[in-house]
Amino acid sequence: MDTETKPSRQPLFMDINADLGESFGIYRLPGDEQLLDLVSSANIACGYHAGDPSVMRRTVRLCLEKGVSIGAHPGFPDREGFGRRSMSCTTEEVYDMTLYQIGALDAFVRSEGGRLRHVKPHGALYNMAAVQRHLAEAIADAVFRYNPELTLVGLAGSNLLEAGRARGLRTAAEAFVDRSYQADGTLTPRHERNAVFHDPAAICRQVVRLAQNGEASGPDGSTVYVGLPDTLCLHGDTAQQENFAERLKKLLSEADVRIRALP
Amino acid sequence: MDTETKPSRQPLFMDINADLGESFGIYRLPGDEQLLDLVSSANIACGYHAGDPSVMRRTVRLCLEKGVSIGAHPGFPDREGFGRRSMSCTTEEVYDMTLYQIGALDAFVRSEGGRLRHVKPHGALYNMAAVQRHLAEAIADAVFRYNPELTLVGLAGSNLLEAGRARGLRTAAEAFVDRSYQADGTLTPRHERNAVFHDPAAICRQVVRLAQNGEASGPDGSTVYVGLPDTLCLHGDTAQQENFAERLKKLLSEADVRIRALP
Amino acid sequence: MDTETKPSRQPLFMDINADLGESFGIYRLPGDEQLLDLVSSANIACGYHAGDPSVMRRTVRLCLEKGVSIGAHPGFPDREGFGRRSMSCTTEEVYDMTLYQIGALDAFVRSEGGRLRHVKPHGALYNMAAVQRHLAEAIADAVFRYNPELTLVGLAGSNLLEAGRARGLRTAAEAFVDRSYQADGTLTPRHERNAVFHDPAAICRQVVRLAQNGEASGPDGSTVYVGLPDTLCLHGDTAQQENFAERLKKLLSEADVRIRALP
Amino acid sequence: MDTETKPSRQPLFMDINADLGESFGIYRLPGDEQLLDLVSSANIACGYHAGDPSVMRRTVRLCLEKGVSIGAHPGFPDREGFGRRSMSCTTEEVYDMTLYQIGALDAFVRSEGGRLRHVKPHGALYNMAAVQRHLAEAIADAVFRYNPELTLVGLAGSNLLEAGRARGLRTAAEAFVDRSYQADGTLTPRHERNAVFHDPAAICRQVVRLAQNGEASGPDGSTVYVGLPDTLCLHGDTAQQENFAERLKKLLSEADVRIRALP
Repeated sequence: MDTETKPSRQPLFMDINADLGESFGIYRLPGDEQLLDLVSSANIACGYHAGDPSVMRRTVRLCLEKGVSIGAHPGFPDREGFGRRSMSCTTEEVYDMTLYQIGALDAFVRSEGGRLRHVKPHGALYNMAAVQRHLAEAIADAVFRYNPELTLVGLAGSNLLEAGRARGLRTAAEAFVDRSYQADGTLTPRHERNAVFHDPAAICRQVVRLAQNGEASGPDGSTVYVGLPDTLCLHGDTAQQENFAERLKKLLSEADVRIRALP
Repeated sequence: MDTETKPSRQPLFMDINADLGESFGIYRLPGDEQLLDLVSSANIACGYHAGDPSVMRRTVRLCLEKGVSIGAHPGFPDREGFGRRSMSCTTEEVYDMTLYQIGALDAFVRSEGGRLRHVKPHGALYNMAAVQRHLAEAIADAVFRYNPELTLVGLAGSNLLEAGRARGLRTAAEAFVDRSYQADGTLTPRHERNAVFHDPAAICRQVVRLAQNGEASGPDGSTVYVGLPDTLCLHGDTAQQENFAERLKKLLSEADVRIRALP
Repeated sequence: MDTETKPSRQPLFMDINADLGESFGIYRLPGDEQLLDLVSSANIACGYHAGDPSVMRRTVRLCLEKGVSIGAHPGFPDREGFGRRSMSCTTEEVYDMTLYQIGALDAFVRSEGGRLRHVKPHGALYNMAAVQRHLAEAIADAVFRYNPELTLVGLAGSNLLEAGRARGLRTAAEAFVDRSYQADGTLTPRHERNAVFHDPAAICRQVVRLAQNGEASGPDGSTVYVGLPDTLCLHGDTAQQENFAERLKKLLSEADVRIRALP
Repeated sequence: MDTETKPSRQPLFMDINADLGESFGIYRLPGDEQLLDLVSSANIACGYHAGDPSVMRRTVRLCLEKGVSIGAHPGFPDREGFGRRSMSCTTEEVYDMTLYQIGALDAFVRSEGGRLRHVKPHGALYNMAAVQRHLAEAIADAVFRYNPELTLVGLAGSNLLEAGRARGLRTAAEAFVDRSYQADGTLTPRHERNAVFHDPAAICRQVVRLAQNGEASGPDGSTVYVGLPDTLCLHGDTAQQENFAERLKKLLSEADVRIRALP
């Protein structure tokens, strides 16, 4: 009946991205292979907060095999804290560490015959650049000077996206499909109730709502308007459930969501 | 008189290279500015054994300002040992760490509007790749896959140069102008007598002999044939003497040596 | 019946040790909790090749709760290679890095009210110190100068144990219960057939044979004499099977093996 | 004559401390030898923000030879930023990293036959612990649990000293002899005019005023009351002037200041 009443329903096209290549040495973070069957874009760690040269090469190869669009995921030089601890770096230091990491990852992309498409900062660098304009500008500047064709991915409505646009970069606003949002539009902190969704059905629902109306769920099930995103982020930890990718893919397909990388 | 007896003397064209950008954080290694006034090629540390993103950017800028040709100087991931301790890495690890470091440095070169010209491994990696063919091939492979236009610099007569030629790369054989050679053509170990020349006149003499006849001095003043080199390496520690660069430059000019980067 | 036919059978007392505390930051190596229910001695990573201060404290606490004897497990400064890559360090560097790591671990042991009992080098450092006498002496020296009451654990018949005895330390010869031995008494390389035992029954059998006669299995099932060991090492990767510790414990108990730390 | 007119003048006893052992690998920070002839207490870097095991051992030996009292100088795990960048670490992380570094340094002190006397946090950790009570408590707790006999050194009037006293530790309030103070009692930021004194006479004057009346100079020459300190810090960069230590020592001696470690 649904198909009868909405015969002309258009499929929803949406980019889904995930942070990948976060293994290091003998330490394996599982989930990459599953996620690569699902997402259209990968943010690959560059050896500062996670990843190492061998993990980077292998992850780039997997992305190219599976047709997943590749981006650099630079972070603070802090493996022990996984790039999640804020560090009071200068504008110059942020510019330099961003450029360094983009170049290092791109070496693997280019040598494997691929093309780097986007840059998305990681963890504390992402959060600080959302708020502090001079760090946002340092990152935007590094991306632009490396390659003005790259897309800069950041939190919807953040300083990072503004700085990117001001610099002349294409930008992509990101929202999160496995996280609830607070009334003010920020993410519910992880340690609070209903902060993270693990159920593929709940995740699928948020994908559709975000893609159609820019709406997400609050921790209490309320509706929070976060704006129409360009790309949706899925976290790796969720994907460690058995058959998670397969189940979510099926649900998204039934909801007529087509996963497709940014242009 | 000299000009009368040798009226047709041709100037000697020779590339002189030095390892630069080896400062790190608050730690400064002096000599870079002096050397940059003298050499035609710089091998810039890439943040593994020495250097950091900010030092890399500043060194790249200085090279571009002074018209010095830029190369990457990848080493083992061992800051504490300055990349001088051999490490039993696999072929894949060496391939991956070489690619990573080249890309990281090139990010600064490209973003400053320059072009990367060559790659020369550092310290223990240089020495191991001179002898161990599989490591030589890993490095040659990384350089070639990054950019087949790059020149691979290595010890004259080494496996590294052979591997580079076999891979289709342009190679440059290196000799040392401030070091004496033993009868078998290897460098006199640093802790032995007359291993290192500090006197600009001695260095100038070795430049001329190497460039003209492929001959170097033994620790006892004997003549050692090492073959005609493509590039001559000058160490930074020598250059910490006051006015060293200026004095050597004057001597080389009087000897009609023209310092010029590899094509 | 068994007790009738062998009325005088004595229980076998044996120390079983394992390498623990090898997690790092967000990276978890599983198996520690299982192993701690089984072994009598723990070799705790000290933040060079694995572990970090928080992992060290937590692991020390667990050992003290479970009455497991605590040792330091120093390795090369090489997280990326997990301390498995040999590095050409000087005697002084090995002395200094050993002392540093022992002290760092002991801080957690002392602050939790425990006592450090032994030191066992890790990975490439263990293997190099088995063969190279000057490295063995550097380690023995560091252990002795830190605390002459500590026991030095090393490969049975190795230079490390000899150096320890020469220095006046108590030493403990180690054999491996989940690895097969080659005819010359060295371990079968991991990549070869039947190099590693995963079956608790096979491991139990090797425990009994080593403890009784100093005999181990060859990869082809033959008998290899390796000498009576003082301590038996069990690898963490084996222990990642479900209920492994419980099953092996039951088998050892049935074979009348009593697991007990070195004096 | 001077002794006639001021017959009752008492000598001033004061502890002067400096941060030492900040070299790393091939990188040398000069000044240690000079400072060791002057100061009564050394804060030795522990391999996190600066120093390495070999530098630590050598510095400990020098202190013992010269009778300089030894303290640990723990910092953030950030060599590239020299521990000067604040990092958002948890209370537990700060507790653990402090304990780790104290133990590592003490290994060298104990193995050389000395005794560790105090702990003074470095850089951003020092500054953050002056203000943030939970970090101050984490540090005080680590020091106390390692050894309740140790003295905790911190900024006069800071949270760190309060936390130390609350924990039952002896504390020492520190003031700076080569820095000017602002009206509110904080240091004049380094990039401002007259922030740092290089002249031995100016430094000597501030030593005497601080030791006698708890007064320091403002950048404009005004008097700022900072309270009577227990120990005075001298920075290494100042000490890189030729004969600096000798000149300051002579001035202090003439002013009847006796340099003596904390009890």
